[in-house]
Amino acid sequence: MSTVTFTTPVQEQIKLVEERIRAQADDNHPDLRAALEHLLSSGGKRVRPTVVLLVGNMLGGTEDKLVTVGAAIELLHTATLVHDDLIDGSLLRRGMPTLNARWSPAATVLTGDFLFARAAKLAAEADHLPLMRHFAQTLATIVEGELTQLFTSHGLINRKNYYQRIYAKTASLFEMSARAGALVSPVNDKVVETMRGFGYETGIAFQIVDDILDFTGDQRAVGKPLGSDLLQGLVTLPAIYYAEANPNDPDVLLLGEGGWGNQDRMERLVNSIRQSDAIQKSMQEAEGYIERALEKLTSLHPGIERSALEDLAKYIVDRRI
Amino acid sequence: MSTVTFTTPVQEQIKLVEERIRAQADDNHPDLRAALEHLLSSGGKRVRPTVVLLVGNMLGGTEDKLVTVGAAIELLHTATLVHDDLIDGSLLRRGMPTLNARWSPAATVLTGDFLFARAAKLAAEADHLPLMRHFAQTLATIVEGELTQLFTSHGLINRKNYYQRIYAKTASLFEMSARAGALVSPVNDKVVETMRGFGYETGIAFQIVDDILDFTGDQRAVGKPLGSDLLQGLVTLPAIYYAEANPNDPDVLLLGEGGWGNQDRMERLVNSIRQSDAIQKSMQEAEGYIERALEKLTSLHPGIERSALEDLAKYIVDRRI
Repeated sequence: MSTVTFTTPVQEQIKLVEERIRAQADDNHPDLRAALEHLLSSGGKRVRPTVVLLVGNMLGGTEDKLVTVGAAIELLHTATLVHDDLIDGSLLRRGMPTLNARWSPAATVLTGDFLFARAAKLAAEADHLPLMRHFAQTLATIVEGELTQLFTSHGLINRKNYYQRIYAKTASLFEMSARAGALVSPVNDKVVETMRGFGYETGIAFQIVDDILDFTGDQRAVGKPLGSDLLQGLVTLPAIYYAEANPNDPDVLLLGEGGWGNQDRMERLVNSIRQSDAIQKSMQEAEGYIERALEKLTSLHPGIERSALEDLAKYIVDRRI
Repeated sequence: MSTVTFTTPVQEQIKLVEERIRAQADDNHPDLRAALEHLLSSGGKRVRPTVVLLVGNMLGGTEDKLVTVGAAIELLHTATLVHDDLIDGSLLRRGMPTLNARWSPAATVLTGDFLFARAAKLAAEADHLPLMRHFAQTLATIVEGELTQLFTSHGLINRKNYYQRIYAKTASLFEMSARAGALVSPVNDKVVETMRGFGYETGIAFQIVDDILDFTGDQRAVGKPLGSDLLQGLVTLPAIYYAEANPNDPDVLLLGEGGWGNQDRMERLVNSIRQSDAIQKSMQEAEGYIERALEKLTSLHPGIERSALEDLAKYIVDRRI
């Protein structure tokens, strides 16, 4: 995996974000503090707060507000992961035991709720109504996406459904991160809208690459078995490209008929996809989103120093392997 | 149970609150709409939105804002109940099957999250930052209270712990309801603070009476077995009064030593408490809170018509059987 350099300009500020997150459990009992510590130490590159900080630094936002908003967004993200792991019954995330693996379901549900509550409180501390409204809307988008996925998305080989899913799951919060960084900065609505677009395009690209890595990644780095999406019946872009090119492949037909529980057949399908050009086509599609994200940046005032955000955008599609 | 009349002045507005709640699922899939319909039809007197509406009507707030805030608060309350039932494994609430009894845990967690998200979105629509901050703080208070209860409160015969618990569980949201009704009305900070106090006092009284009804209520009306708190190790005010008067009762000693799982002994303790003056003393304590709530009302400008709120306060301690 390529060396992570996009966080370098905000390394110190990310530490402030982590401190702000840790402070959320200060007055609570030790179990919750331990859980928060565990969640913070479980890796994660803090991509979302990095987006907030890079955008806000570029546009002249005040550090304290950016740190508050970054902490709110990372906590919201963490809350959704805690409930996700409970829902999936996942015992590992990024190779570390999940909260779910260590605690009772009751404690896990409540810890997620606690993180939601503290995320909302931090977002409210930014003292900005449009930001608060966007925050509440994003939470609704994420949860509605998960409900749709739970009830209707399994085994569905459908591009529109896929894009709705990755918008809800990932791009909506990237969009919010970039827009929030601009909202608390001294810029006009046009710039806020440009940055929202930057967040959207990079967020979609980020999730497409994540979905590619589920087929091609180093299993230890990804922290879960290869092809795990497909084994759960979640059809992502590489599988869609493969199915479009090979509609009569018996494993594709089986998947469409609800057969993702057949492990041998799905493992064969994973191998077929890995050996096809579906991976490359998916990566080209992700690169298209990154190109559009970079175009958004070029539309900004020429005096604005945009190289840190350019690095971030490029990093997203460099995560191959 | 006494006839409910306190909702009469706001009957039509409560229908608007319910419509606003129903509208939250309009653009979603049928399962979620059905779940919301089920939750709305599961009874409940909408006490919290009634508090918002009565306070706001008294103080000249606009109907639309009051309805929005009332719907936000009722949704927040419903979200916490959905997760509570999952955590307790409860299959019935007010005699009706819980969501938990009908759906998978995954769907139940996500439905609760969905309700949190929509509650936050509605609260943000009130366009009022102090209200939004209070909303986020109340959510945090409720969830932290549940975590404390889960980890540390079982078998604890302690008045301070009890009051902290019922503040988090009930009074905090009553406080928020009364304060929010005032916040969106054309009144000064002193009146807002008076109404916050009214909400606090009535909320504490409401929960004490609920806890008394767990010992004395009509099992069908309460919708769960008598003494169910004690059987879970939750020591409420009647049990605290009884334990103070009978510190050497072997069942009290057993409870303090973690023996609430002994059903026969706890049933005997429930009977001992019912036959003691602990019930009456607890009711007197609730009445003291209601008296203080009524005093708050007398401190308002004499021209303000406060009879509807007086009725509400009196109703709370009239719920004896």
